[in-house]
Amino acid sequence: MSSLVVRNIGQLLTLRGPARPRVGGEMSELGILTDAAMLISDGVIVSVGKDGQVEADGATEVDAEGGVVSPGFVDAHTHPVFGGTRVDEYELRAQGASYVEISQAGGGIMSTVRATRAASEDELFRQSRRYADWFLKGGTTTVEAKSGYGLTLEDELKILRVIHRLNAECPLDYIATFLGAHSIPTEFRDEPSEYVDMVIHQMIPKVWPTGLAEWCDVFCESIAFDLRTTERIMMAAKEAGFGLRMHVDQLSNEGGAALAARLGATTADHLERTDASGIAALADAGVQPVLLPASVYALGLDHYPDARGMISAGLAVVLATDFNPGSSPTTSMPAVLSLACTHLKMSPAEAMTACTVNAAYSLHRGDQLGALTPGKQADFVIWGVEDYREIPYFFGVNHVRSVWKEGRSVVSGSPGLRV
Amino acid sequence: MSSLVVRNIGQLLTLRGPARPRVGGEMSELGILTDAAMLISDGVIVSVGKDGQVEADGATEVDAEGGVVSPGFVDAHTHPVFGGTRVDEYELRAQGASYVEISQAGGGIMSTVRATRAASEDELFRQSRRYADWFLKGGTTTVEAKSGYGLTLEDELKILRVIHRLNAECPLDYIATFLGAHSIPTEFRDEPSEYVDMVIHQMIPKVWPTGLAEWCDVFCESIAFDLRTTERIMMAAKEAGFGLRMHVDQLSNEGGAALAARLGATTADHLERTDASGIAALADAGVQPVLLPASVYALGLDHYPDARGMISAGLAVVLATDFNPGSSPTTSMPAVLSLACTHLKMSPAEAMTACTVNAAYSLHRGDQLGALTPGKQADFVIWGVEDYREIPYFFGVNHVRSVWKEGRSVVSGSPGLRV
Repeated sequence: MSSLVVRNIGQLLTLRGPARPRVGGEMSELGILTDAAMLISDGVIVSVGKDGQVEADGATEVDAEGGVVSPGFVDAHTHPVFGGTRVDEYELRAQGASYVEISQAGGGIMSTVRATRAASEDELFRQSRRYADWFLKGGTTTVEAKSGYGLTLEDELKILRVIHRLNAECPLDYIATFLGAHSIPTEFRDEPSEYVDMVIHQMIPKVWPTGLAEWCDVFCESIAFDLRTTERIMMAAKEAGFGLRMHVDQLSNEGGAALAARLGATTADHLERTDASGIAALADAGVQPVLLPASVYALGLDHYPDARGMISAGLAVVLATDFNPGSSPTTSMPAVLSLACTHLKMSPAEAMTACTVNAAYSLHRGDQLGALTPGKQADFVIWGVEDYREIPYFFGVNHVRSVWKEGRSVVSGSPGLRV
Repeated sequence: MSSLVVRNIGQLLTLRGPARPRVGGEMSELGILTDAAMLISDGVIVSVGKDGQVEADGATEVDAEGGVVSPGFVDAHTHPVFGGTRVDEYELRAQGASYVEISQAGGGIMSTVRATRAASEDELFRQSRRYADWFLKGGTTTVEAKSGYGLTLEDELKILRVIHRLNAECPLDYIATFLGAHSIPTEFRDEPSEYVDMVIHQMIPKVWPTGLAEWCDVFCESIAFDLRTTERIMMAAKEAGFGLRMHVDQLSNEGGAALAARLGATTADHLERTDASGIAALADAGVQPVLLPASVYALGLDHYPDARGMISAGLAVVLATDFNPGSSPTTSMPAVLSLACTHLKMSPAEAMTACTVNAAYSLHRGDQLGALTPGKQADFVIWGVEDYREIPYFFGVNHVRSVWKEGRSVVSGSPGLRV
């Protein structure tokens, strides 16, 4: 049995609380222990408490130097496997082109689809491995990972196999989502219904039995899949056995939130355009909102989702990066925390809850991840700040001192200053 | 003679160009050399060129591993010496309080003034030293540093002495600015003109001879110093010998840009509310605009300065962090590059120009800093990306691999991944 004790913790964010998704009123309770210690055995937390009261005979000692210790971030919405980048398009957008314009000119998602189809599995693995390092360095220990840049059965399976291999070979944990309905591929542009049929009748039935994805997602938007089509795809996915996550109301309010509620989806993601009736529908149905402010930011837009309305409605809000090469090229959850505080008007405590315990529940991992309480997996971050609020406040600076996955150190040391 | 050669540079951003502030049309020329090398002797660049053509007998070799090499950032507007933080206020702002409301309730600048007055010189040094490390880790090698949290002669001199000591003891270079006219201190609230007289007749004449500051600045805004008062202070400063920098048109357009033009200031900073006539005045007078998008972002506002209008007018735009504990708690120039591309609609090349060569000229250091050409000081950054555009594109991730000041390594290595 290998034991580890972390001592001299200035603030231990336990996120202890009810063993179910948080509702609004509870989002600001981080369960902070000061002058704390945490005992870990075989990758699982055994006890937390005041430093002097946690006994740990024979355990390896780690000194948190008075810093903050938080759960590793759970990033519940990412697209981390793709070929190429979209830095050319980024430059065009900086010069004023809109996302929809670029998409209609054959750029956007389809340019990444072309590069992803052209890439070998090894090439995709190598590129994604680099991003895995970035996630870890920013304090993220688990990511939800969507396919969606293949758009043929074979290419979608290729991406899901890369995710499977990343999960096996990297300390970062991946939870896979099949997103065949990410975009209508160019070759089906004249007959989009044929692509939809292929998703429903060929992809979904063949992807599910591989065990390579536990969730299914659709990009519900007029430039992608409309409400009726989204419903058909989601119904087929549900029947096959997938859990449901949905991209809705990102660029326009088309009633996507209400659809997610009606379908009993686990999450409704984006929600930039969701209004009060959509929020009420999510609350009635217990669908968790996954907010992605980094994609609003990176597109240079200013219409952020109504996080305050959602929290008031009692929803257990989740924050995620939406990491992807087009609309959100960041792996940084601290950047998302900053955006949440400055632009979604969430408090630092609410933001921290949203990307740890709430995110874990949204992936059905609430029993294992997202909190630092006995029995939970020992995925945690030691921060070089004494007050957790400084993580979003001093933005643009990486305050991570070390990252631990199941009690093992996976990132250590900030860049060395030679002075 | 100690020599160093950096080889295997994928993109060397030389920023070579006319030896004067850039005008708009030239802002997108980075003078990129590919497959390049750079020879340095005694802290000064001797030659740059194709890797195979740079001879360097006996020089220590550094391998850039195909990455980008850029000049170290010159951050031309910071407030890096202060007591305490304003993380409590940050939490209030996240919950909806405005900057002006907080300021009128005795928070804002005055809360930092109280903490700064209460701190000893050693305490201020230790706190600021931490931020110096953050600047360096983000690739910044020179900062302009304002006083302004003392607001008595003694406390302003205390801050300027701390800046002087930071400059002497850290590899980061500091260029000091006296900002006694940052705010009317509480004790003069009923008689603000008495404070103004004190700045003009006691502070300016006593600060200049110490040699502790080469620039003077005023916060020109209705909640601070009005146009007429700003003019009186700036005239006195000019007469004493100071160069002029000015905070103008941040929260409202009060004609601050036109005043900066009339006074022949070197820079006009903020400019969020400056209109076309203000831009024309700056262009006529050759005043460099210093844009601070991080303060717009961190205040949760969405009214950014008209960078495109300024570039079209031929102005040599500068970007800076505005690092301070209230409106812009970031030391990160990469975060500012990202904001410039996504929200100011500057291209990555324009943004890079704005925080290197243009920033150096705005501090009268254009002959030494901000470019990587023979004769310039060897302040540079080796980046872990192959295309400089990825620095703003993949935001929230620190891509710095190492930082060098006068040819010496001051930051090396990204956080160690144990995998």
